[in-house]
Amino acid sequence: MSIETLKARIAKEFGTPAVVIDLDRVERNIARAQAMCDAAGVANRPHIKTHKSPLLARMQCDAGARGITCQKLGEAEVMADGGLDDILISYNLLGSQKMGRLGALLRRVNVTVAADNPTVVEGLTEAARIAERPLPVVVECDTGRKRAGVETPGEAVELAKLIARLPGLEFAGFMFYPTEQSWPETQRFFDTACEGIKEAGLEPKIVSTGGTPNLANLGKLQGATEHRPGTYIFNDRMMLEYGAATLDDCALMVYATVVSRAAPERGILDSGSKTLTADTGGGLDGFGLILEHPQARIHAFSEEHGFLDLSACNERPKVGDIVRIIPNHVCVVVNMVDQMIAVRGDEIVDVIPVAARGKLT
Amino acid sequence: MSIETLKARIAKEFGTPAVVIDLDRVERNIARAQAMCDAAGVANRPHIKTHKSPLLARMQCDAGARGITCQKLGEAEVMADGGLDDILISYNLLGSQKMGRLGALLRRVNVTVAADNPTVVEGLTEAARIAERPLPVVVECDTGRKRAGVETPGEAVELAKLIARLPGLEFAGFMFYPTEQSWPETQRFFDTACEGIKEAGLEPKIVSTGGTPNLANLGKLQGATEHRPGTYIFNDRMMLEYGAATLDDCALMVYATVVSRAAPERGILDSGSKTLTADTGGGLDGFGLILEHPQARIHAFSEEHGFLDLSACNERPKVGDIVRIIPNHVCVVVNMVDQMIAVRGDEIVDVIPVAARGKLT
Repeated sequence: MSIETLKARIAKEFGTPAVVIDLDRVERNIARAQAMCDAAGVANRPHIKTHKSPLLARMQCDAGARGITCQKLGEAEVMADGGLDDILISYNLLGSQKMGRLGALLRRVNVTVAADNPTVVEGLTEAARIAERPLPVVVECDTGRKRAGVETPGEAVELAKLIARLPGLEFAGFMFYPTEQSWPETQRFFDTACEGIKEAGLEPKIVSTGGTPNLANLGKLQGATEHRPGTYIFNDRMMLEYGAATLDDCALMVYATVVSRAAPERGILDSGSKTLTADTGGGLDGFGLILEHPQARIHAFSEEHGFLDLSACNERPKVGDIVRIIPNHVCVVVNMVDQMIAVRGDEIVDVIPVAARGKLT
Repeated sequence: MSIETLKARIAKEFGTPAVVIDLDRVERNIARAQAMCDAAGVANRPHIKTHKSPLLARMQCDAGARGITCQKLGEAEVMADGGLDDILISYNLLGSQKMGRLGALLRRVNVTVAADNPTVVEGLTEAARIAERPLPVVVECDTGRKRAGVETPGEAVELAKLIARLPGLEFAGFMFYPTEQSWPETQRFFDTACEGIKEAGLEPKIVSTGGTPNLANLGKLQGATEHRPGTYIFNDRMMLEYGAATLDDCALMVYATVVSRAAPERGILDSGSKTLTADTGGGLDGFGLILEHPQARIHAFSEEHGFLDLSACNERPKVGDIVRIIPNHVCVVVNMVDQMIAVRGDEIVDVIPVAARGKLT
């Protein structure tokens, strides 16, 4: 089949907009990141936030990943249902409802959680009590993102000691998410924190770093044991911008139809912010790259309309044309849909549910 | 119950983040918009894009709405399953897959569709053929948004004539979505188009306008027969900004927990772009209004982290505090979740599925 035949078949069988992933590219992306982790001597623990599919998580583990990372407890539950049994939840979990669920999860799979403050750590003892099993906890450390994470090695040491002291909890190590620039700072933070916990007789079994762009920085943190890349499985316009992927590495595309061409220089796609999302990808120009018309700008959205500026295009699409879009940020696009259509080259081979979508809690 | 008790109960029964709607406010909002339409002598045809729930659509119709508006065929199918039987799909529909579904839908409920170009209009004959029933079509006209819609009255007349001429289609009227400023232009457009179709022996049964802020402009288009407001059922920060709603009219809030306070001037909410969305609400400052801390700014998002700037707050939340957030744009937030928790005042009374969520096509 040609790509035009594939487009027509997707429109006929599923309608547009449709989220389409190329499994050949997915497999290549999985293998390449795994090889980078292997070469650096760091375990791979991919973040499933990008695909939210146990099937794809199993492909990552079958290719050599040690386990997976989830951001939400509900995602971890779906992954455990799907047979994944070694899960890091890289997020502060709080409250009796979540402690009950975390305890139940810990009874059936290996779970490690992250925490950055005493309130969260103290709450976690309840999950361990329910599970009747020790809960490993890593201390989340901030080295530049100003997101979650303790800000100083001293705080990290105090939190590690608290974890080690509390019933049911095990101090498991440190979790970082370095920025491009903060690897030296991360090393200093880690080294100082290590000295501090050594005095208390503790040592980090897990030293975790994160991010697809940071696959190129593996090895920069001496002592790192594992890495949490997410986006690499599909890639997107942000990864193109970072230089972390090429067009051939982009495994997910949104197939959309041009539904209106009310004037020569503009048009409307059937994909708006409820499909492609308003994510600017950290300040990119426009909301996606149209493969067939790279000079077209998706310059604005309504909920179900993508506004096309065609003024820079020599060839302009007509009503009914189907185009393929590489989104700015692939993780948030997957989160909009219930299924991904899987292809290999020009063949439709599967429909993959986004099983962990909508797991807010 | 106090609001603090309600917050604790929602966290305990559902966890956070949670999307919570107040049915007392919903009913007030429904009644007020209906009264405004009644007073203007214009039928109300609310847009269900905001709530995606047949239950809430039935509340709107029970209060006097003539029917509903959907943006996607899949939304209309869910609404028809839920007993709604008078549906305008205000969108260009294209392709054999959709024509088959539209034909099947037309067999069982009253459907009108919008179109702005000949390719779409010609395609629609297939749906009418399948349904063995005439399909009413309104011509979408642009008067300032530069979205979909023919740009001139002349084009509108030509399209009306084409609709009238083609087998199975009925010319039903005109659909507008005036901007705040374009009501006079809309009147001129409409009057000119009316003269044109009159010569062809046609007349518009439906003359439709749209938008919650435009509820205040009902009556400005002489000849209008119905209006399509959407957001008014819940309202949001955009409607506050427009002056189309007060705080007491905001019926939907996201309940979120402060999960990190790594530094005195900042904090992290458990709600990021996968809950509140990156929608700026047309350029608002920050990503939501926190009722408990109106001086706090949600200044950035990760997918599951809301970044709080607390520097302007006298009282600052601590880890574990639950806050209520009025989102920038409520329609896109509802689209992120599978259910809304319904309360009346401080009591939890129901859980309402977002049944038409994820209907991309």
